[in-house]
Amino acid sequence: MLVQGISYRTVDWEDGAVVLIDQPMLPHVFRRVKLRDVESVARAITTMVVRGAGAIGATAAYGLALAARLASDQDFDVQIAQGRARLADTRPTAQNLFYGLDRVGSAIAQAGGGDQPGQARAAALIAAQAVADEDAAWCEAIGRHGAPLLEDGWGVATHCNAGWLAFVDWGSALSPVYAAARAGRSLHVFVDETRPRGQGARLTAWELAGEGIAHSVIADNAFAHYARAGAIQAVIVGSDRVARNGDVANKIGTCGRAIIARHVGIPFYVALPSSTIDADCPNGGAIPIEERDGDEVRWTWGETDGGEFSRVRTTYADCPVKNPAFDVTPADLVDGLITEHGVFPASSEGVRRILEAAGRL
Amino acid sequence: MLVQGISYRTVDWEDGAVVLIDQPMLPHVFRRVKLRDVESVARAITTMVVRGAGAIGATAAYGLALAARLASDQDFDVQIAQGRARLADTRPTAQNLFYGLDRVGSAIAQAGGGDQPGQARAAALIAAQAVADEDAAWCEAIGRHGAPLLEDGWGVATHCNAGWLAFVDWGSALSPVYAAARAGRSLHVFVDETRPRGQGARLTAWELAGEGIAHSVIADNAFAHYARAGAIQAVIVGSDRVARNGDVANKIGTCGRAIIARHVGIPFYVALPSSTIDADCPNGGAIPIEERDGDEVRWTWGETDGGEFSRVRTTYADCPVKNPAFDVTPADLVDGLITEHGVFPASSEGVRRILEAAGRL
Repeated sequence: MLVQGISYRTVDWEDGAVVLIDQPMLPHVFRRVKLRDVESVARAITTMVVRGAGAIGATAAYGLALAARLASDQDFDVQIAQGRARLADTRPTAQNLFYGLDRVGSAIAQAGGGDQPGQARAAALIAAQAVADEDAAWCEAIGRHGAPLLEDGWGVATHCNAGWLAFVDWGSALSPVYAAARAGRSLHVFVDETRPRGQGARLTAWELAGEGIAHSVIADNAFAHYARAGAIQAVIVGSDRVARNGDVANKIGTCGRAIIARHVGIPFYVALPSSTIDADCPNGGAIPIEERDGDEVRWTWGETDGGEFSRVRTTYADCPVKNPAFDVTPADLVDGLITEHGVFPASSEGVRRILEAAGRL
Repeated sequence: MLVQGISYRTVDWEDGAVVLIDQPMLPHVFRRVKLRDVESVARAITTMVVRGAGAIGATAAYGLALAARLASDQDFDVQIAQGRARLADTRPTAQNLFYGLDRVGSAIAQAGGGDQPGQARAAALIAAQAVADEDAAWCEAIGRHGAPLLEDGWGVATHCNAGWLAFVDWGSALSPVYAAARAGRSLHVFVDETRPRGQGARLTAWELAGEGIAHSVIADNAFAHYARAGAIQAVIVGSDRVARNGDVANKIGTCGRAIIARHVGIPFYVALPSSTIDADCPNGGAIPIEERDGDEVRWTWGETDGGEFSRVRTTYADCPVKNPAFDVTPADLVDGLITEHGVFPASSEGVRRILEAAGRL
């Protein structure tokens, strides 16, 4: 999508290197980093230079293609195995990481591996490119299916960042917004700040500015006020994991938005590539909620008046904090799952139809 | 209430001076400031060294008593009028400010004013002390009436700071918590951070630590998660203004909590001295919602790792922001109004009974 009029992907391959947008520095500095070895790619994943399921999958895929590019003919298979192990070790709970590694690993093997290192290198890069293109295509399809749900002049609320920065391009929750805007509809996006990490204030607002879409950042507390005031006609969020019954795990605060939207009578949509569905997870109760470091709540990081970067504490030192990363929104509060295969009800039947369309049943 | 084992009031009179807790520096520095002239008192109100209806009323009352103390015998009435005008000019929309000034002004007049400056000075201080004592007594009574609603072992959620720092002592929303705790019940308070200004993280958590009450600060986004998880058995908030029909204006985010609490089946209480009821306001629709400076959302102020004070920006520069200070919670989402006269239904009839008990009908 666009940054100051120029189109970028979150993850890309340029001149034999993996290129990422340095997300922790956004929105203060827009900077792309060129990673020329596997160790740098692994560190970029660990330190969250890149984040989001789709973007991590593509980064891992390109990372393994980079390993193939750099591996010597004599020691090809060993160096590929080492590169794969290093990349797999970065965020072992990220489903898409392994999807990306497996796709590229299989392509290398099918091309002959160490017996045909030249062909294997080419196959690895083609496979990595396919992983990235596929992610972008899925997200674009989410936008195509979701855009008709948004009418000209509407206020649309979103939470956290489920935009193109979390994928290779387009994004999940924001893709219908981008598609509707490119189709000429005028929308105003209410961007939740999304404490404690502030992905809405930092990333989503910056994304929307790049695409020229009207938006306002609001404190997370202000959502209900604007929903009741008639300023918001739809809510779209992304998802980290969808269970077989349609329950949705997503950034902390999502469930509260869904309850408020239902109370006020505003449709609440969850946008996701079908790969987000965990077919082994029966319902939201089976999803463990990660409790993160309390310092995320105690401290806030940003740019000072002097252009320095610093963090400031707003609580007393060592104040007790609870900091769940996600919550679960029950399927019955979700008015639709917007996927690359269309919009489906958030129910066991709806999820079954999505898995069927994705060829996973 | 207690700070490190010592009992303080938010506003006090010591050695012929008005003494305030310097609230903008909390929780980083606990400091009391001694104000020896009317101009200093006025500036303390304007710069929010003191905040909250009850605390502002008492500060203004003591401020006018200070004006009387410093006024010359020859020029007594003129200097009182000047002091009153200066104090009235600080926060002209604060109802309690004028209540405090009127009480002390009347006492001065009844004692003879400039004709009897010695008696007028004494009467002014007695009246100011009465305003402060009355505020503390109201809040203590709120605690007495509200404490039976809270059972041993409960999780209690609160929003913003409606504790003793917003009044002279005890507070409104936290008074039932303090009373229940002093009666030996064990509670755990879930303290909303309360962005954008963070009064929960800054003030409420610090208050609770002083009283030795278990608490956890949570991001505003985490309330629904803990409510659904069964960790919260009651919600108590304060109020800035209650309308004749029981609608409640309070810190932005209150209404969302009420909707979620009702959805989950948790009682939602509003605690207030009856003086918070605006008898001229028919319903919440008649309450104007103040839109505050967007920099409150863009920037966060606090203490750096180096012990300096700084603010950091988390959005891109000049990012569009909407920042409503308050929202309105409809009466039908409120399970009870906890006042100094008892607990009443949030309804036209309930509010009528409170006004009757307060002798205002």
